[in-house]
Amino acid sequence: MHVQHCIVSAPGKAILHGEHAVVHGKVALAVSLNLRTFLELKATSSGKVCVDLPNIDTSLSWDVSELRMLLSASLVKQEETKLLDVELLRRLREFVGITDGNLDTRSMATLAFLYIYLSLFGSGDLPSLSVSVWSELPTGAGLGSSAAYSVCLAAALLTASGAIPAPLKDSASTARWCQEDMELINSWAFQGEKIIHGNPSGVDNAVGTWGGMLRFLVPLLRILLTNTKVPRSTKVLVAGVKDKLNKFPSIINPVLDSVDAISCTCEKTLAEMTSEPITGEHYNVLEELIDINQTQLNVMGVGHPSLDTLCRVTLARGLHSKLTGAGGGGCGITLLRPETDSSVVQSTVQDLRDCGYECWETSIGGPGVQQHSPTSVKDEVMERLSPH
Amino acid sequence: MHVQHCIVSAPGKAILHGEHAVVHGKVALAVSLNLRTFLELKATSSGKVCVDLPNIDTSLSWDVSELRMLLSASLVKQEETKLLDVELLRRLREFVGITDGNLDTRSMATLAFLYIYLSLFGSGDLPSLSVSVWSELPTGAGLGSSAAYSVCLAAALLTASGAIPAPLKDSASTARWCQEDMELINSWAFQGEKIIHGNPSGVDNAVGTWGGMLRFLVPLLRILLTNTKVPRSTKVLVAGVKDKLNKFPSIINPVLDSVDAISCTCEKTLAEMTSEPITGEHYNVLEELIDINQTQLNVMGVGHPSLDTLCRVTLARGLHSKLTGAGGGGCGITLLRPETDSSVVQSTVQDLRDCGYECWETSIGGPGVQQHSPTSVKDEVMERLSPH
Repeated sequence: MHVQHCIVSAPGKAILHGEHAVVHGKVALAVSLNLRTFLELKATSSGKVCVDLPNIDTSLSWDVSELRMLLSASLVKQEETKLLDVELLRRLREFVGITDGNLDTRSMATLAFLYIYLSLFGSGDLPSLSVSVWSELPTGAGLGSSAAYSVCLAAALLTASGAIPAPLKDSASTARWCQEDMELINSWAFQGEKIIHGNPSGVDNAVGTWGGMLRFLVPLLRILLTNTKVPRSTKVLVAGVKDKLNKFPSIINPVLDSVDAISCTCEKTLAEMTSEPITGEHYNVLEELIDINQTQLNVMGVGHPSLDTLCRVTLARGLHSKLTGAGGGGCGITLLRPETDSSVVQSTVQDLRDCGYECWETSIGGPGVQQHSPTSVKDEVMERLSPH
Repeated sequence: MHVQHCIVSAPGKAILHGEHAVVHGKVALAVSLNLRTFLELKATSSGKVCVDLPNIDTSLSWDVSELRMLLSASLVKQEETKLLDVELLRRLREFVGITDGNLDTRSMATLAFLYIYLSLFGSGDLPSLSVSVWSELPTGAGLGSSAAYSVCLAAALLTASGAIPAPLKDSASTARWCQEDMELINSWAFQGEKIIHGNPSGVDNAVGTWGGMLRFLVPLLRILLTNTKVPRSTKVLVAGVKDKLNKFPSIINPVLDSVDAISCTCEKTLAEMTSEPITGEHYNVLEELIDINQTQLNVMGVGHPSLDTLCRVTLARGLHSKLTGAGGGGCGITLLRPETDSSVVQSTVQDLRDCGYECWETSIGGPGVQQHSPTSVKDEVMERLSPH
């Protein structure tokens, strides 16, 4: 079987408002983050399946015949994507050498790839191909990097297998799949997420597939994304909020209600920005909501001095920031206005780097998974995908 | 008429929790602040009434005969303290030279003194006397300095006039009046506050009179009081919160509910501390409430970088702070634990002075107005009251 060459990409995810409150039944706004994961799939005649993951210095290769042996005689082409094929997963864990405690990124990425590859191609000939993945996203930072990877895998392998058509027309630089095909991509990406995370919410792969903000049309917003590089444990932070809620329910419950209202007000404002002319007042509201939510997250006890510094440093340039995700360090987002001068952005980025932080100028609300023509992908990304 | 010599003092006031929320119908905890205003009243035979206010470099003196002329023939001894004697006040404003726009501290202090003096003594002989007032409180910092002054005036002049007995017994160093006498002191002090402020809430003079926390028994808590010396307008800050509430009612109303619950939880904790053995856990709760409320005040937009600095500097020494009063600069309080070592306190005070702040080690929850024996008053205060 010969497969078609394709390049796809999927965005990361940032929480605009509602982190932590979502654990207690409140609204959260998850939006696509335009730091993307790119995947190039090439047909080969080597009789091999190769996976290159330069972000984590991983280059793997298997003989097709070796992979064929992992399929049981009874395995039929996997149409049902709601449940994981437990028997296949068990064999793959053994093949990859995963013991229970071994959950490193490389093993998980390998497992997700092989599972989707064998599930989609297992009923016919296994094609030889090479897959190369490069991501602009930091891993393990709560920015949906594993979901972006799973979405790319699903889109590329589904397209290669012929299960969905390649959407890219001759002259176009990028193209997206139809709604029905995206649903299939999303369901396979969710399988990948389950393999990697055990019990994912499904939000990250949905944002990676559809982009924007779930269920809503949103404007593209310029942001800075900053990684304070302060390590944190999401589990400990979530437990801390729960303890506070148990200790002071009459104080903390209204805080969660307030955050819920912030998410709803933000959603309403973003909706207005897509249906009427965008004004400075829209941005004023977005900035106020960011400031209020950041202080609310401090009330919940998930702030950190590094995040206070982020807020102070950016406010000195007139920019408003909040943590995104679990808090306690980790990442923050800074809203940029359309009129914010690039010199201001560059100075701010420099200030933040001087604090020891990593900083990216990017946007939120951009498109989900898409196919690219090779010429439409930035040279630096192409160089990572297919080094010369 | 010859009056009795006496020395009295009254405490200032700090808001422990609930500032701003109180404007919107929520509970606020006003507590006595043990930075006190001292007043010494001496009988003289000079035929003069003298007022010395060394804090504001004011020394005034009038002939008793001159003051007598301000009383109309129809004026009777003022028993009814609910309403101001508008005619007397008009004459006094003219006498002191107060035009509508002229509301300086010296004029207001003079007006309040003369009003209470003439009201209490006007029906009989006007006694010659001298009054000297020295305050440990900064003025205009939202710490109830005018109320402490009015309470001292009321207590000393009521005692001098014989309207209430001097409570101090021979061997005692301090003494307080009975409940009924304190009610009379409070009602006259409220008159003074009305003259000085126009439309006071009555909270400050009540705290100055009764001390502690209104209606509740509270433990004495060690604190640092810090004045950031950043000037602010209470009116502008209150209006800012109101604007935010109007703009984002669904977000800010829960914040006010949360602050209300903080005040109630604090009240409950303080009550427990008076009825059961005080534990570290009581202080843990008080500290958490301080932290949460400080961030809530930031949500309301009444924080200030100088207050963030206060919190950061004290937290570096393991101490918890919040703004007290209007915010936007002004004053903050820092809770000290009973076991907090004096070396830690001294280092913290030095850190705060290095920030350019004024800082006092004092306490909250102490006694209200009291009479002092001359030997029970600190030398530095006596020196200010009666310089040699």
